[in-house]
Amino acid sequence: MKLEANRVYNFNPGPATLPIEVLKEAQSEFLNFNKNGMSIVEISHRSKPYEEVHAQTKSDVLELMQLGDDYEVLFIQGGASLQFAMIPMNFASAEHKGSYVLSGTFSSNAYKEANILGVGEIAASSKETGFHHVPNQSELKINPDAAYLHVCYNNTIYGTEFHYIPGTNGVPLFADMSSDMLSRPIDFKKFDFIYAGVQKNLGPAGVVLVVAKKSLIEKSRDTLPTMLRYDTFYKKDSLYNTPPEFCIYMVGKVAKWIKSQGGLSAMAERNAKKAKLLYDAIDNSNGFYRGHADKDSRSFMNVTFRLPNEELEKKFVAEAAANNLCGVKGHRSVGGMRASIYNAMPIEGAATLAEFMEQFKNHNS
Amino acid sequence: MKLEANRVYNFNPGPATLPIEVLKEAQSEFLNFNKNGMSIVEISHRSKPYEEVHAQTKSDVLELMQLGDDYEVLFIQGGASLQFAMIPMNFASAEHKGSYVLSGTFSSNAYKEANILGVGEIAASSKETGFHHVPNQSELKINPDAAYLHVCYNNTIYGTEFHYIPGTNGVPLFADMSSDMLSRPIDFKKFDFIYAGVQKNLGPAGVVLVVAKKSLIEKSRDTLPTMLRYDTFYKKDSLYNTPPEFCIYMVGKVAKWIKSQGGLSAMAERNAKKAKLLYDAIDNSNGFYRGHADKDSRSFMNVTFRLPNEELEKKFVAEAAANNLCGVKGHRSVGGMRASIYNAMPIEGAATLAEFMEQFKNHNS
Repeated sequence: MKLEANRVYNFNPGPATLPIEVLKEAQSEFLNFNKNGMSIVEISHRSKPYEEVHAQTKSDVLELMQLGDDYEVLFIQGGASLQFAMIPMNFASAEHKGSYVLSGTFSSNAYKEANILGVGEIAASSKETGFHHVPNQSELKINPDAAYLHVCYNNTIYGTEFHYIPGTNGVPLFADMSSDMLSRPIDFKKFDFIYAGVQKNLGPAGVVLVVAKKSLIEKSRDTLPTMLRYDTFYKKDSLYNTPPEFCIYMVGKVAKWIKSQGGLSAMAERNAKKAKLLYDAIDNSNGFYRGHADKDSRSFMNVTFRLPNEELEKKFVAEAAANNLCGVKGHRSVGGMRASIYNAMPIEGAATLAEFMEQFKNHNS
Repeated sequence: MKLEANRVYNFNPGPATLPIEVLKEAQSEFLNFNKNGMSIVEISHRSKPYEEVHAQTKSDVLELMQLGDDYEVLFIQGGASLQFAMIPMNFASAEHKGSYVLSGTFSSNAYKEANILGVGEIAASSKETGFHHVPNQSELKINPDAAYLHVCYNNTIYGTEFHYIPGTNGVPLFADMSSDMLSRPIDFKKFDFIYAGVQKNLGPAGVVLVVAKKSLIEKSRDTLPTMLRYDTFYKKDSLYNTPPEFCIYMVGKVAKWIKSQGGLSAMAERNAKKAKLLYDAIDNSNGFYRGHADKDSRSFMNVTFRLPNEELEKKFVAEAAANNLCGVKGHRSVGGMRASIYNAMPIEGAATLAEFMEQFKNHNS
């Protein structure tokens, strides 16, 4: 697929590139959604046309995840960062703490919120070794009394990703999948609670997708404020108050797009191809490019690497941008480069970047 | 201004009609914002083009409200309903309770959240008289030890609005202005904390505008989760995590539009004209239409009225819709009709509805 006129390849980590087909469709109906004479941003959340969007988005997400009636999809505002607090508020206690696997910045932030409430503990951490890998099964110390085991499935900043589903001996498994949600088939039934800020793989910033077992979210502590209880969202179908309609509508369109492309298997295939192009460019560079992640923890979503020095890194960012390859600067805590290649990044984007990497190396080594 | 082809007059209470000029501008740049080759929904919240939108929106809001450097604008997700909880969590205590004026559904919901935390009390209520008016100054019992006095400035469901600024004897004044924010000039300096879900007067659902005194929000209790502390938003310029960029961008465009129309005085003039058209249609109907609100509490934003019977009310809704006058059905707790005439509703929309009301009355009485 050729790049559209005036568009760039957008490797930003989130908000991130979205399918051009989805953007065009949203644009074309922006003044008159579903022939109602109103924009999707003007339409009542209690109206039939919106309710259809809401319900269809939920059912498409469950279908893509191959989950049944025992799971519910919730739409909650506040970002994954608010989930970091809501999860321990709803599920953990001094007796049954939340148990956290620290594999990067966001999992550490999640643990921090549980800790503010005095209900967090650490099951494993790869911090001491610079978050180059995600802790493997043998590293996990799971407290059988834990309320849940919390993992961050893909670490956007470090470019690492879980390639196994943690065994927990019956402790409920919770996962922040903000940066790899719906990017590949996973046996989602092994998880009790999955959440994802949608602004990486699924839509515009402004909503978190929670997919959780109904048995877990059907009842919350009645000492909690209404908007911080999962059962409020469950019982009211995420319509207790006005939901962020536009974000949900866009997530719905992206889910439909994923289905039209062949579902999660097709996404996985396409994402693996893109990742291979970039990891090969690193591995075949004779050390000019150095990947941050250990090979067995490499992310299929965020490819992190460094160059021989910071001057070359600056030059790389500038020259890449001049070639319509934007947003490749890494996070300050890791430095270097990060190319985010979410679902919507076309293979041609990754191929163009890999080619640029090869040329840049030849001109600068 | 004539109605655009395929568009309707949208009298919904929120999400609600937005200025057509704003919608068209957003549509035209939807694939390529600010010549960056990305959509506004794809662009990094740490990028310069987005930061400019963020900063400009804040400064335009303060300019419209004629507020200075001692006030800060925050963008928070979760709707006004989450503010109902965050306000008492941050400011009230068992010794210094939050004091609430109950003037309708949302103010009662705000009080309910303070009550869950055990820190709410009632300063006045018009519930017993069916919320036909907002309590007047003489009805307010203000506890001098209260942490704040909370009012809902416009009651969307009942169609009532404050037409005076409550005197509080030094108790900080907090106001939910979700449904009349930036609809008229008010001496905003008399308020310590103002908030508004933007989906009525200012943009798409998905963000709350908080405008508050810096001295009030610069420090929060450190026992609170990070995302529930106002100082997190204040210190990080509402960029602690990814903000709902698209909503903020749209609020920015609406603020610019308000400025281009002549600011809040122009809005007030236009809104008063629209309200007069509809209230005159009620008052001159020989009792065919009966307004819900007492005359001195009538809202300039939501005009609520009943017809002689429910059958006629159903007929009214259906025939209005057939005439491109949509969303006039009232809330179930009041019944009858509600015409919401926020800033973006053109005078022609209200005039067309008033004319329809006259004809409908003539055909059915």
